[in-house]
Amino acid sequence: MEQKAILLPVDEYRLRLQRLQTLMENAGIPACLVSDNSNKYYLTGRVFTGYVFVPAVGDAVILVRRPVDLEGGNVRSIRKPEEIPATLEYNLQQSIGLELDLLSYSAAIRLQKVFAGIETVNISMLLRQARSVKTTYEQEKLRASGIRQTSVYRRIPGLYREGMTDVELQVEIERRLRLEGCLGQFRISGDSMEMFMGSVLVGENADSPSPYDFAMGGRGQDPSLPVGADGTMIRPGVSVMVDMNGNFNGYMTDMTRVFAAGEIGQKARDAHDLSIEICRMAEREMRPGVQASALYERTLDMVRAAGLEDYYMGHRQKAGFIGHGVGIEVNELPVIAPRSHDVFSEGNVVALEPKFVIPQVGAVGIENTYIIKGDTTECLTLAPEQIQQLV
Amino acid sequence: MEQKAILLPVDEYRLRLQRLQTLMENAGIPACLVSDNSNKYYLTGRVFTGYVFVPAVGDAVILVRRPVDLEGGNVRSIRKPEEIPATLEYNLQQSIGLELDLLSYSAAIRLQKVFAGIETVNISMLLRQARSVKTTYEQEKLRASGIRQTSVYRRIPGLYREGMTDVELQVEIERRLRLEGCLGQFRISGDSMEMFMGSVLVGENADSPSPYDFAMGGRGQDPSLPVGADGTMIRPGVSVMVDMNGNFNGYMTDMTRVFAAGEIGQKARDAHDLSIEICRMAEREMRPGVQASALYERTLDMVRAAGLEDYYMGHRQKAGFIGHGVGIEVNELPVIAPRSHDVFSEGNVVALEPKFVIPQVGAVGIENTYIIKGDTTECLTLAPEQIQQLV
Repeated sequence: MEQKAILLPVDEYRLRLQRLQTLMENAGIPACLVSDNSNKYYLTGRVFTGYVFVPAVGDAVILVRRPVDLEGGNVRSIRKPEEIPATLEYNLQQSIGLELDLLSYSAAIRLQKVFAGIETVNISMLLRQARSVKTTYEQEKLRASGIRQTSVYRRIPGLYREGMTDVELQVEIERRLRLEGCLGQFRISGDSMEMFMGSVLVGENADSPSPYDFAMGGRGQDPSLPVGADGTMIRPGVSVMVDMNGNFNGYMTDMTRVFAAGEIGQKARDAHDLSIEICRMAEREMRPGVQASALYERTLDMVRAAGLEDYYMGHRQKAGFIGHGVGIEVNELPVIAPRSHDVFSEGNVVALEPKFVIPQVGAVGIENTYIIKGDTTECLTLAPEQIQQLV
Repeated sequence: MEQKAILLPVDEYRLRLQRLQTLMENAGIPACLVSDNSNKYYLTGRVFTGYVFVPAVGDAVILVRRPVDLEGGNVRSIRKPEEIPATLEYNLQQSIGLELDLLSYSAAIRLQKVFAGIETVNISMLLRQARSVKTTYEQEKLRASGIRQTSVYRRIPGLYREGMTDVELQVEIERRLRLEGCLGQFRISGDSMEMFMGSVLVGENADSPSPYDFAMGGRGQDPSLPVGADGTMIRPGVSVMVDMNGNFNGYMTDMTRVFAAGEIGQKARDAHDLSIEICRMAEREMRPGVQASALYERTLDMVRAAGLEDYYMGHRQKAGFIGHGVGIEVNELPVIAPRSHDVFSEGNVVALEPKFVIPQVGAVGIENTYIIKGDTTECLTLAPEQIQQLV
């Protein structure tokens, strides 16, 4: 009744491990101990309580507390971090890498005591870099999520009933997503951003300043979770922006589309069309070697030329970015922002979301998830981009 | 268009602040800086990006990065932690409290540099202690969540259709909860436990060892989220355990009930009845001053007397506790476990979950959320406790 610890195909496991090991060698880090769920999932295809010990050369060791039934030649059972050094058949050298951006201070200090006499160095960024270039296997997972998310988005107009609130429409979309196999979970790196399965923003609620770095916030249903739908009635003249969870297999696509129950004003329609144009431009420009910040500036030029900069990426409160890497987590590298130092690479998967908040109307614009390839971009989110009528 | 920073009634705000300040004075901590969302929500009734600075004597200062529109005499806008000392009109003394169990190592080190020359001490446990005794206002919020969660649980038999899988039933329960106002979000202290809106466990899936300290795990729908329902068909002879989210207002009740589509075996029914008996015993015994570990042992005596210890709190993998405090987060104090040092206090709110996993049948037993009072316990989760027939 035991189960294999590594749930990735052998070649895929080796590829990911070698990618991290190459980055470790370049940084002069002889070994590291990985504890974050998303990073463990990346390295093993599994979530568990414990650690992955990765030497710069050689096989990884899976140190497991729970579940109790994992098997494999490289699996070791441990009950607490103090058992790690004795459990490893490895001669620890002058330094060990830890995810210091993710471990709590108390957990990191405890590990520093476990590895007394050995320097600890921060490997959070190495793992973010390794994960920012998706393997063919990961791209296939993202493609599969995109197909399923798209099929639910196409059905949204049919889920609407006259007199619905934003929350009521969102609940029906949640149900369709879940029945299609959506896992519901948003993985977000760091622990301070909270949200539930995405947001449906109707009318001026989109202009409520968010506690987070979001272009459009929404008051939410309760002050304890001040994000997204707040009970606003869907009515003619306002926009309905849907930005719901696309995690069907551990890898999530990110897609936003706009709907309306009746006509909305010219300025909002112009801004929406500009968002689509920006995506077309980005599809041509997002190539390996291009600076993410340069793409950001190109979009800003287009927005300024249209006289819409007061509404771009928020109105009362603006977001500091227009796109972000996506994969296991919703906030991966690269970041498309004015001060980003990221350069696009082949295999990056990015969600681009040039959005606008138009007073009296609400949020417009689209978000697509793209794979960046050598000489093209592949869009994974293929629902119709124009504003769709709900009735 | 500005909004008040403090969303609690003035008396409630003062009460919570004084409770923390008393604990700080007793521990000799002259001031602290609170950054965790759950703790900020406790102190202000609001979630935001920023900090609450609390001196041992005097009013708190709300240091806000986002949202941009908060107002109040004690609100200060900041962009980064380095601005904190200059922003505070306060003479920092020899030490400052930080949530070192919750802040990342990198964030804590950054704050230690901000407060260079001042010792940092860990206030994570102080805040857990303050929050473990619920105010009358908090108890009312929990009571309200319990009423709404109970009303959805009563409707579960009507949501079942023959031929449903665990996932399909769970999706219909999720929808009813959300339409009743459930926020969906589980707040969990620490960032390593992941789950989506609770679990429906059918048959032997309940016996799948979990990556977490859960009595019953469930394989989940995908290895990336290995918890809960896995697509098992609901059929006669197996149990259907429902343990779904009860967060309707920032405070959550925790309730588990068991359903069945047809008869289930005698041993499972006996174990379920024993779980109800254990709750009756606990309702008499959970009084201020009683050791949580003693209650745990009392339950174990009852389970041993019935010869059911092989199945108690899991079978292939066992959980280390039978109950836990609940409120803003699902893993608050006190913890009801063999090595717990917690002692019950008036105002504790605890979820008690004496459960069993019976081979071939699945999970049985109930979970109730109680307010511990001076001479009684108040149950907040009032759905029928016997195994309910789905058909």
